[in-house]
Amino acid sequence: MFRTHTCGELRIDHKDNQVTLAGWVQTIRKFGAITFVDLRDRYGITQLVFNEILNTQLDDQPLGREFVLQASGKVLERTNKNQTIPTGEIEIEVTGFKILNKSATPPFTIQDDTDGGDDLRMKFRYLDLRRNAVKRNLELRYAVNRSARNYLHENAFMDIETPFLIKSTPEGARDFVVPSRMNTGQFYALPQSPQTFKQLLMVSGYDRYYQIVKCFRDEDLRADRQPEFTQIDCEMSFVEQEDILKMFEELIKRIFKDVKNIDYTDIIERMTWEDAMWQYGNDKPDIRFGMSICTLKKPATVFYDKADHAALINDAGFVVFDSAESVMAIAVPGGAAFTRKQLDELTEWVKRPQIGMKGLAYIRANEDGSYKSSIDKFYSEERLKAIAEASGAQKGDITLILAGAEERTRKAMSELRLEMGKQLGLRKEHEFKLLWVLDFPLFEYAEEENRWVARHHPFTSPKPSQIQTMIVNDPVIHDAANYLSHPYAQIKANAYDMVLNGNEIGGGSIRIYQRELQEKMFAALGMSQDEALHKFGFLLGAFEYGAPPHGGIAFGFDRLCSILGGSESIRDFIAFPKNNSGRDVMLDAPSTIDNSQLDELALIIKG
Amino acid sequence: MFRTHTCGELRIDHKDNQVTLAGWVQTIRKFGAITFVDLRDRYGITQLVFNEILNTQLDDQPLGREFVLQASGKVLERTNKNQTIPTGEIEIEVTGFKILNKSATPPFTIQDDTDGGDDLRMKFRYLDLRRNAVKRNLELRYAVNRSARNYLHENAFMDIETPFLIKSTPEGARDFVVPSRMNTGQFYALPQSPQTFKQLLMVSGYDRYYQIVKCFRDEDLRADRQPEFTQIDCEMSFVEQEDILKMFEELIKRIFKDVKNIDYTDIIERMTWEDAMWQYGNDKPDIRFGMSICTLKKPATVFYDKADHAALINDAGFVVFDSAESVMAIAVPGGAAFTRKQLDELTEWVKRPQIGMKGLAYIRANEDGSYKSSIDKFYSEERLKAIAEASGAQKGDITLILAGAEERTRKAMSELRLEMGKQLGLRKEHEFKLLWVLDFPLFEYAEEENRWVARHHPFTSPKPSQIQTMIVNDPVIHDAANYLSHPYAQIKANAYDMVLNGNEIGGGSIRIYQRELQEKMFAALGMSQDEALHKFGFLLGAFEYGAPPHGGIAFGFDRLCSILGGSESIRDFIAFPKNNSGRDVMLDAPSTIDNSQLDELALIIKG
Repeated sequence: MFRTHTCGELRIDHKDNQVTLAGWVQTIRKFGAITFVDLRDRYGITQLVFNEILNTQLDDQPLGREFVLQASGKVLERTNKNQTIPTGEIEIEVTGFKILNKSATPPFTIQDDTDGGDDLRMKFRYLDLRRNAVKRNLELRYAVNRSARNYLHENAFMDIETPFLIKSTPEGARDFVVPSRMNTGQFYALPQSPQTFKQLLMVSGYDRYYQIVKCFRDEDLRADRQPEFTQIDCEMSFVEQEDILKMFEELIKRIFKDVKNIDYTDIIERMTWEDAMWQYGNDKPDIRFGMSICTLKKPATVFYDKADHAALINDAGFVVFDSAESVMAIAVPGGAAFTRKQLDELTEWVKRPQIGMKGLAYIRANEDGSYKSSIDKFYSEERLKAIAEASGAQKGDITLILAGAEERTRKAMSELRLEMGKQLGLRKEHEFKLLWVLDFPLFEYAEEENRWVARHHPFTSPKPSQIQTMIVNDPVIHDAANYLSHPYAQIKANAYDMVLNGNEIGGGSIRIYQRELQEKMFAALGMSQDEALHKFGFLLGAFEYGAPPHGGIAFGFDRLCSILGGSESIRDFIAFPKNNSGRDVMLDAPSTIDNSQLDELALIIKG
Repeated sequence: MFRTHTCGELRIDHKDNQVTLAGWVQTIRKFGAITFVDLRDRYGITQLVFNEILNTQLDDQPLGREFVLQASGKVLERTNKNQTIPTGEIEIEVTGFKILNKSATPPFTIQDDTDGGDDLRMKFRYLDLRRNAVKRNLELRYAVNRSARNYLHENAFMDIETPFLIKSTPEGARDFVVPSRMNTGQFYALPQSPQTFKQLLMVSGYDRYYQIVKCFRDEDLRADRQPEFTQIDCEMSFVEQEDILKMFEELIKRIFKDVKNIDYTDIIERMTWEDAMWQYGNDKPDIRFGMSICTLKKPATVFYDKADHAALINDAGFVVFDSAESVMAIAVPGGAAFTRKQLDELTEWVKRPQIGMKGLAYIRANEDGSYKSSIDKFYSEERLKAIAEASGAQKGDITLILAGAEERTRKAMSELRLEMGKQLGLRKEHEFKLLWVLDFPLFEYAEEENRWVARHHPFTSPKPSQIQTMIVNDPVIHDAANYLSHPYAQIKANAYDMVLNGNEIGGGSIRIYQRELQEKMFAALGMSQDEALHKFGFLLGAFEYGAPPHGGIAFGFDRLCSILGGSESIRDFIAFPKNNSGRDVMLDAPSTIDNSQLDELALIIKG
């Protein structure tokens, strides 16, 4: 060992001990004949004092920032104590030292507020990883890992490793493939998730499975997506939806407790997918604040069971509202005080291509009880009041109104709500609010192909009461324009997402475990029987031999960590992330390979 | 929940409780109007009793083996108790049941002694996994996983995930590569180990790292090799070899305790690589038994420090020994009683191509004190006695002698020793004997290329005292015939292997952490400076910025589990293994992929 103690270990109780430390030179401060060095390692920082004699030696072997230093000496009580660090009461009077390795000057400072830009930090990731901010993230990640494993272990889950070199079954995202040298012309695929394997393990009777496992998706990377990412992947047998919800809300609560020391005692709210879309305009609402959406007008084809407030806006001769498919409003607390400039900025904001609205209408609910709006010309104050009240506005609030095509407007309203929440400081980093979103549609409509696609994945079970609807109806959509009236459009999935502060952190479902139903599902997705057998014959086969009812969930581990760490970026929580082009700029990967490697794989690169 | 209890849970204390169980039908036994069903799940087996009334219902809905059944009823005390299972004192008087899923007749029996052949079991792996024998293996694997994680956590190691899509650096085994769609013509590689990443983490100051992680090697598969395998991968900073040995022998002892309830209190033996080769003919000796090799004759170029017993065999006019480069012997306890037939069989055994010897000589040390041999014609009884005694033979033993080229003969003698150990029952499955093998050569000679290759890997440090030898000498081998006299041939590595019962279960080294030495190493391996920078520039770069002394080890997780489980095959300890052609026969992978996938990757398959 190059050390007797770590740099975070020594306390006043160690006074007069002879110790040896090893670590990195954080700072060097020279005061006349005395030099102070802060020595850093993973565990902390300890102050070293070099007296006059050693200073001469230091002149011969000068130290620099990030040098690796071994120093021996006696633990002294500091006269000038530093109460901000655990080792602040002591210092080491150095009697001997050795430079274990030198360091060039780092290309950026190893500090919380580094001067390194993103690209530089990624190229020198091994230096970036030295920064406290990044180290704390990886420590948090390990704590989440450890907490999850402990909880799952205590609940009889078994970690079972599933293979990485599997079969390509393009459905959903794109597979990364791996050419086989021993079977030239053939390819393995890297798993997008261990989905089918964990289901097979249930068929095999393993009852409760988990894995913290890398998954791979070859997608065009949006900001903050990684081609390889980590899931906490779980599956259970002989369960219904309620059992899964209970098991895994306790998992998240346990992580809150272990990692953040938060007692999450609130009952976790539940919301149907339809209510989430209706009230918040998206399927992962941030419920740390209200400001829910009031649908003033909607087309009859959506949200059958919900009533809009069309009477409040109709027959006023306002062509924008009259011609719009949908009109929606939110009431922003205190917004009556918004200046004209603020409202202009908001209008510009909703007109940006990312949001895509034509404009923004508003109604101020003034403190004096009057109502003023941008649509005064068409609506009497009484009607304005009625609209404002429908949106939930109190005195002093402002009602913001968007109009346009249903889907786009709802999405825009959702974005506007989140933006207002942010501007008003309602999305507090240290407040955590969990939500289950339930009852998703089983299918989504793929317009180009005029067919159904699985919203979750093809192994998700419909609600038990709707299995018959699925079995007896023909999945083919004969009238594309009215696809919403196809019986399949109404089938709800036995699926659930866990949402934390407006982010989906986990999702899962009760699975299909009957061969007949699984075959019907593949057919519904436009797969021929041959194709289904070719791709998923092993699973259909397994369902022949006593498959139990089962279900599971997978948590996005990177995302969960980033939210718990109070960051928007998952990259900060991955030791060696890739950039938005899928490159590892430190390694310079991907890269070309030798022709001999290509030859062995019998591959030629085109063009 | 489909159950109130598992099938392994109920005891006599539960008598009269109303319970619901769910599981698989193991056996059905009909006695007149009563039917007994053994219901199985992961946790155990519980006996169900169907009385006369339910028997009628059973006639309508007949059960079969491996059906998934849910049954409710009252816990009764059995009249006829089964003391061999924990639930054997009770049975369930069924009052209602439901068939949750049917099962076709499995293609082989779900029993310890299954009638399924290897191919069939692999194709239906999901059924094979139901067998107790396989389940126990995966449970053991999880127990080892859990034990290792706990120990490493308690010793301040952090699990840090390293990337899977990295850069191809062909050196050592062949990489699996992954074509990049976003960077066509470029490839990622799958890691053969996280070696360089864990070293970077040490440079980053993480101090103690571990991971239980999949690794990939595209090798021609020998029996019992898998293209993907799992390592317990560890690295520590500020350590010397002794620190690593201590830390990780405690890890293995902890695993013995947690998993097998074995207190391994023996001091773990240590042996240099040279002694291992000299005494046992291989670098991973099984030291559960003796029978060490006596080198009667060896060439002067090897084992400089060791003396052979050439005087005992020379000048006898026996041309086989005289013309052989090496002659070696072992003394087999009790072997004097071997029949002529047994010796003929042994002779055939050593003449098999896998062993490749020309013949086998022997000397019987008879109980009456006489010595009889197959080489009586050349050696007096006195000389036979001297040879036998040199080999360690006692009265009643037999000395077996092989002659030939040094390397081949030593290997053959090692194999013969193991075979004799096996035949004599000295390799006991339930005896565990650990051994550290130390002081490996740093380099091996690659004859075809007339250059040095790294025996371990290019990041392994030489012994501190030999760093200068490495730095000051030119690695080029000018006299290929005398490569052994090159100074590099004598350099020992700061490396260590942990051996368990004749299997290498782990290996590691103290690493190079100085840029100059690492560059010299790359040069020694015949890499140009450009090539070294292209492949490992990030590591050389990292060594510029304060790399600490560090070292580590990696354990072969699959192998460790198989030895602890008393099996020769690692496949039995992997949930979804591949066969010897690298195929997953259950999935039928690898397989062809769509042309559209190839197009996106800009790849053409040759021929």
